[in-house]
Amino acid sequence: MGKYSIGVDFGTLSGRAVVVDVSSGKIAAQAVKNYTHGVMDKELPGGAKLGRDWALQHPMDYLEVFYEAIPEALKMSGIDGRDVIGVSVDFTACTMLPLDKNHMPLCFLEEFKNEPHAYVKLWKHHAAQEQANRLNETARSRGEAFLDRYGGRISSEWLVPKIMQILEEAPEVYEKSAVFAEAADWVTFMLCGSFIRNACTAGYKALWSKREGYPSKSFFKALDARLENLVEEKLGGRIEPTGRRAGFLSREMAGRLGLGSDVAVAVANVDAHVSLPAVGITEPGKLLMIIGTSTCDILLGTEEKSVEGMCGVVEDGVIEGFYGYEAGQSCVGDHFDWFAANCVPGHMHEEAERAGMDIQACLTDKAARYLPGESGLLALDWFNGNRSVLVDADLSGLMLGMTLRTRPEELYRALIEATAYGQRMIIEAFEASGVPVEELYACGGISWKNRLMMQIYADVMNRPIRISASSQTPALGAAMFGAVAAGKARGGYDSITDCAKVMGGVSETYYPIPENVRVYNALYAEYSKLHDFFGRGGNDVMKRLRAIRTENGHA
Amino acid sequence: MGKYSIGVDFGTLSGRAVVVDVSSGKIAAQAVKNYTHGVMDKELPGGAKLGRDWALQHPMDYLEVFYEAIPEALKMSGIDGRDVIGVSVDFTACTMLPLDKNHMPLCFLEEFKNEPHAYVKLWKHHAAQEQANRLNETARSRGEAFLDRYGGRISSEWLVPKIMQILEEAPEVYEKSAVFAEAADWVTFMLCGSFIRNACTAGYKALWSKREGYPSKSFFKALDARLENLVEEKLGGRIEPTGRRAGFLSREMAGRLGLGSDVAVAVANVDAHVSLPAVGITEPGKLLMIIGTSTCDILLGTEEKSVEGMCGVVEDGVIEGFYGYEAGQSCVGDHFDWFAANCVPGHMHEEAERAGMDIQACLTDKAARYLPGESGLLALDWFNGNRSVLVDADLSGLMLGMTLRTRPEELYRALIEATAYGQRMIIEAFEASGVPVEELYACGGISWKNRLMMQIYADVMNRPIRISASSQTPALGAAMFGAVAAGKARGGYDSITDCAKVMGGVSETYYPIPENVRVYNALYAEYSKLHDFFGRGGNDVMKRLRAIRTENGHA
Repeated sequence: MGKYSIGVDFGTLSGRAVVVDVSSGKIAAQAVKNYTHGVMDKELPGGAKLGRDWALQHPMDYLEVFYEAIPEALKMSGIDGRDVIGVSVDFTACTMLPLDKNHMPLCFLEEFKNEPHAYVKLWKHHAAQEQANRLNETARSRGEAFLDRYGGRISSEWLVPKIMQILEEAPEVYEKSAVFAEAADWVTFMLCGSFIRNACTAGYKALWSKREGYPSKSFFKALDARLENLVEEKLGGRIEPTGRRAGFLSREMAGRLGLGSDVAVAVANVDAHVSLPAVGITEPGKLLMIIGTSTCDILLGTEEKSVEGMCGVVEDGVIEGFYGYEAGQSCVGDHFDWFAANCVPGHMHEEAERAGMDIQACLTDKAARYLPGESGLLALDWFNGNRSVLVDADLSGLMLGMTLRTRPEELYRALIEATAYGQRMIIEAFEASGVPVEELYACGGISWKNRLMMQIYADVMNRPIRISASSQTPALGAAMFGAVAAGKARGGYDSITDCAKVMGGVSETYYPIPENVRVYNALYAEYSKLHDFFGRGGNDVMKRLRAIRTENGHA
Repeated sequence: MGKYSIGVDFGTLSGRAVVVDVSSGKIAAQAVKNYTHGVMDKELPGGAKLGRDWALQHPMDYLEVFYEAIPEALKMSGIDGRDVIGVSVDFTACTMLPLDKNHMPLCFLEEFKNEPHAYVKLWKHHAAQEQANRLNETARSRGEAFLDRYGGRISSEWLVPKIMQILEEAPEVYEKSAVFAEAADWVTFMLCGSFIRNACTAGYKALWSKREGYPSKSFFKALDARLENLVEEKLGGRIEPTGRRAGFLSREMAGRLGLGSDVAVAVANVDAHVSLPAVGITEPGKLLMIIGTSTCDILLGTEEKSVEGMCGVVEDGVIEGFYGYEAGQSCVGDHFDWFAANCVPGHMHEEAERAGMDIQACLTDKAARYLPGESGLLALDWFNGNRSVLVDADLSGLMLGMTLRTRPEELYRALIEATAYGQRMIIEAFEASGVPVEELYACGGISWKNRLMMQIYADVMNRPIRISASSQTPALGAAMFGAVAAGKARGGYDSITDCAKVMGGVSETYYPIPENVRVYNALYAEYSKLHDFFGRGGNDVMKRLRAIRTENGHA
């Protein structure tokens, strides 16, 4: 009989379990469980109101994914639960929650069930911006070296600002918390009974590094005297690289899931980072773009370099033995969704409907009939600010070159091209800092659905782009780490590199077309000029427009 | 019995006759005649094919306007034809045609009826661009002073390039032509039998000035040896300021139209320029914006100044005794039409339909709910290049400040605001050159229909804007010049100034709102920076994008 591994991918609205054949990487079956409470951004189940920019989740929803999706997927696959050798999760991050000394979520306690701060703060909980601003100021004024590992800025989405918010707004929750945990690590604890922190979230979200550890006591004290001993008091737990084994499935959980109790449980992982081996990457020089509403770029390097505007560099953070670099674009698919919702004339909607096409497929079809440079348009992809390389949320979009003959599909194509130029900026920033980028890989829904976009990316980047063979790249990646946790002796693999050769891979490759490359080089030169002019202080009109809007009382 | 004057406004697709009470300026009746041949831009009636960018008309269509619209309007008014004291026309310009020595159009001759160059070249005949380029080069290299009167550039729409095209492409038509006439002057000749050239088109379109006359023989010779004696040979006819009398209605025409033969016929005029007295302007410092698909600005001054990017300055060209300045924006209403056709989502079209509203009225309604600065958007109004002050057809549109929350009506409002900023640029250019602009007036369809736009204009310009009382401003203006041609002794007026006090005028006035002025001053400062940066060589990206488009074989 074959051996199988189970990967569980925890997304923003649901969790997905996949059962994967470890000899091929083929998904035998999968099942999705939508979170019962979804994203709580207005109120708690008991009625307690939430503030603006809040986004909470209920930890019980995650356990339901285990309890329902795993057995369902197993059943659909028709395999024997005893043939499963490993299980592993990947999660959104930083998605964090406070636990008591028994590693139980505080929100499970009667006394805290109506206290918002006792629940899970989802990655997109943005209510700790004020805390993040203070953290950044303090770190800058103290010249904290850790800032360099995060492109000079700590996001409000990360662990410490979220903890600061709890401390300041609900000190009794802070007091009662024995552990502030990533949800990824907590659900892994629930599988195997060992609380291990994964090096990926510790590094990218909790300011930890293998060589330097966490920031110093004096730094935390400078933030707030009560935080001086945060690390010792509330960030306990061994930190392990991804790919290691966290433990074995607990007897109780094994019974509940219909699995054996000798199933290896891997150290948890993050949805983007876990995808690298799933497309076959376990070595430096190959950049993976996870393309969705935004794009996350992951790249391995052999040294720690400071790269302008990256989101983080973490030793052992992606694949043990390498430095994992993360960068990204804050708005990619979101541009196209915005355009489709706001800028497409009625007659084109009707045309799409008659043809039985999605409106974006219809727009893409029309846009594909243009050659590079034909529209005379150029855009800046900053509708949601710029994450890498400028790290500036106050930038906004730009489009130029319009004439009375400009058609909607040309504007749409210009937005696609703009995201490609933004991606090339990131690649050039890596290369300028001595982190080589030799090959490009892509995964995520858009990479499968939008052939025009992938060809434009290949042409703009002048590199072949290899597309993930699996449409469930993160879940497959998680299953692969499960197989590595099991080890070769139990039918898995002894390293993620060995595993990736068999279970990971790509399907299609898009090759650059030389005549397109030539035109796009010229257009990219124009993009670069505008990027630097509007992004590096040549004309701060975007910031001033934002200020004018705010001064006049508009949000 | 009251006295009446008839104005005939020759537009691009039709001619309109209005019968106006000279004691009040009230329109008693009006009638429209669509041109039988419309705009001929593909072929002649006999089948001869036309080239790209051609636009011809048939001179018989203009006579049909006299023969049908005047009697119809008279009949509708119920007045006695003997109470009409004057008649006058205004026309698009430069709309020109070749005549034989009897002032008959060459296209009426059997031998030329299939020769495109024998027909009327409409103002928007753009096929003489190559000739215009050569003319500009020659004038520049010879340091011809007349260029200064035209903002440094002669348009391909004007008389001399059109004549050059005839000479080069149909020398036999050139040879046979005894007179190259403005259609305005030819139809006036058909009314009264005197061929008088009006100073308005002679000045604005034929490079003539009261003090310098036409360009020199040596200049014309430098263009083409065959043109050396163009002025003496083919530009004969006395040049008279508008407001003068060209003659009296011929007996034959009077009979045909049902009028007396003592009806005074005024020197012809141009649609924009004729409108000034119709809104009550006959003195310096009051700028009239004729707002349509594009905007034409007319302003009187007491001296000849060189103003950056104006379209022309002509002594006696608008009101005798003053220098008439013309400037303009090449794209105004066209922006909004483009937006409505290309960028409005289906659901908004449905909403407008349910409310029984025009889509632009619906967009305007929604846009009016925003405050200045609220959208955070800023645009450059160059979708059809920039006429004044940059005189650069190769510029293109720009929009910046977009976020994922930007709504279509905000983009629409930003386009309206951009045209207002462009208008303010023109006003500031006049003032910087010592031509004062104290009051603003507006006429044209948009000034009546779009209250939001007029309020934005008042706020951006920080000046009250007075709106023409008549919705048929040019036709009313023509009728007024007819009343002046008749003179006070016959029941009319001895001067256009006296006439304008009675027959011209405004209805509504839009006043600037101080808090809006404050915000728009800040936004205009941003517009100015972008205007100068992209329009004066800071970054010629728009030209380079156009070049990239052309190099790659796209038109």
